[in-house]
Amino acid sequence: MPTFVQILDFIGTFAFAISGIRLASAKHFDWFGAYVCGFAVAVGGGTIRDVLLDVTPVWMTNPVYLLCTALALVWVIAFGKHLIHLNNSLFTFDAIGLALFTVVGCEKALTLGFPWWVAIIMGSITGAAGGVIRDVLINETPLIFRKEIYALACVAGGLAYWACHVCGAEPVVCQVTGGVTVFLARVLAVRFNICLPILSGHEEEEKDGK
Amino acid sequence: MPTFVQILDFIGTFAFAISGIRLASAKHFDWFGAYVCGFAVAVGGGTIRDVLLDVTPVWMTNPVYLLCTALALVWVIAFGKHLIHLNNSLFTFDAIGLALFTVVGCEKALTLGFPWWVAIIMGSITGAAGGVIRDVLINETPLIFRKEIYALACVAGGLAYWACHVCGAEPVVCQVTGGVTVFLARVLAVRFNICLPILSGHEEEEKDGK
Amino acid sequence: MPTFVQILDFIGTFAFAISGIRLASAKHFDWFGAYVCGFAVAVGGGTIRDVLLDVTPVWMTNPVYLLCTALALVWVIAFGKHLIHLNNSLFTFDAIGLALFTVVGCEKALTLGFPWWVAIIMGSITGAAGGVIRDVLINETPLIFRKEIYALACVAGGLAYWACHVCGAEPVVCQVTGGVTVFLARVLAVRFNICLPILSGHEEEEKDGK
Repeated sequence: MPTFVQILDFIGTFAFAISGIRLASAKHFDWFGAYVCGFAVAVGGGTIRDVLLDVTPVWMTNPVYLLCTALALVWVIAFGKHLIHLNNSLFTFDAIGLALFTVVGCEKALTLGFPWWVAIIMGSITGAAGGVIRDVLINETPLIFRKEIYALACVAGGLAYWACHVCGAEPVVCQVTGGVTVFLARVLAVRFNICLPILSGHEEEEKDGK
Repeated sequence: MPTFVQILDFIGTFAFAISGIRLASAKHFDWFGAYVCGFAVAVGGGTIRDVLLDVTPVWMTNPVYLLCTALALVWVIAFGKHLIHLNNSLFTFDAIGLALFTVVGCEKALTLGFPWWVAIIMGSITGAAGGVIRDVLINETPLIFRKEIYALACVAGGLAYWACHVCGAEPVVCQVTGGVTVFLARVLAVRFNICLPILSGHEEEEKDGK
Repeated sequence: MPTFVQILDFIGTFAFAISGIRLASAKHFDWFGAYVCGFAVAVGGGTIRDVLLDVTPVWMTNPVYLLCTALALVWVIAFGKHLIHLNNSLFTFDAIGLALFTVVGCEKALTLGFPWWVAIIMGSITGAAGGVIRDVLINETPLIFRKEIYALACVAGGLAYWACHVCGAEPVVCQVTGGVTVFLARVLAVRFNICLPILSGHEEEEKDGK
């Protein structure tokens, strides 16, 4: 019997893989390329985290991530034309994946004895780096550096997780608080179109130079 | 005296380096940039594999890969204008390199005790990831996600290797079977222009939306 | 009390972070994206080096790199319009950073028992790879492969460092010689616009083909 966290992990992986596969299809990748792109989004963040923490990447210990990405590919091939009606569900799944991956990343770094600020960065990398890898592979400027709050939601969740941890809360309380913070930050940012200020120093310089 | 496998390894590295250097020249890289690009194609896949398997990258233990890439650079600088007549030989060398690198990657992962599906992925990464790094460096959408079967030939070879391994065949039989499978899959794919289906879910969506 | 090398390290990190943040601003990244881009330039090279050498990345052991990047971001936001008057100072800081990072990378590899040619590559990666990561993130062809001598200055400095090391010079002599070589090579290359030859084999081929 899979646990509740494993089911959430599966849903998050599935949603992340779908996100990669759909962007690959917009770039006319073939099925294999789309699979690789989906897999990169689903496990890329966790792989970078595990390489930095010097442990074996989690997808090399359990084939479920490969199968989950295969399922996502079959899903897109079969139901591609109906996916647009599911955009809201997919966004929700993606936000759940982001929340869960952030919490998993924080926890892993803390368990391995790293300081809290490394844990928050590892949580953010787990959640957000897959999307950066995807955008590098499809040769686009990474979206998360320009659109609504994304990686910053991970940072907020990591801080919430750590605050609970410092206050001596039980692990499950830390996890839920961290995850809910990521989820709410992400959903509210998209709902109210909250973006960070754009850095425009370069343009000002040029105007100044005239 | 170098062994037969070492000679094949040298030929494969040379062919891969040439491939990187030629694409760099199309992008007007300078000599150093071309060298780095050639080196990235030649050792990039093996480096990612070794980082994931947590062993020292193989090019850090033997300077032959650096020398081989330098030779490839000198070759392109000296004989660049005649290389076009060698396209068929280079394609053959590239396919040999792909076959050999795949077998080496599979074998290394199995020797280190990883499961068979990790071994197949490591074989494919060893063979195909160098080309992805090259395309990211020269700022193009990775070709292997769109053109004739390439990384999938590695997967086929990895499966053949593993099938022999399971049947209790001797290592040399596994190696030859795996390598020949990659080589034939790649050569036949290019000869008969065999491509995987393009994933076009996104377009259907848009048509559907009208 | 920070040591002299720590102060140089801080200056180099700051200059590298500024370089990443300014390029991010030209691409309309938001503040967070600019911070990530600056951080990637500042610590990216050292991170690749440490992953290849299989040690914990240095920024995960000391939060000073995070703070330094934050300071650089505040600086660009506050004084962005005046930065253009500082271009010469920033270039000097960048060259200091390049020199220092190269020496640190060489030394670390030698201390860990790697051969001299690995040490020179590690020095060059420490100095130059951050800029490659930056260019991949902002979706440009890496500049260092085309503009004035940059990574080759690191190679020259690494060779100088190693030559002193072989001659039995004291560590501080090796460090100063290596660092000064990088700095001078870089400054002279920009002052006299020294570039490596462009590799143009591909064009010759096409002309030849007519």
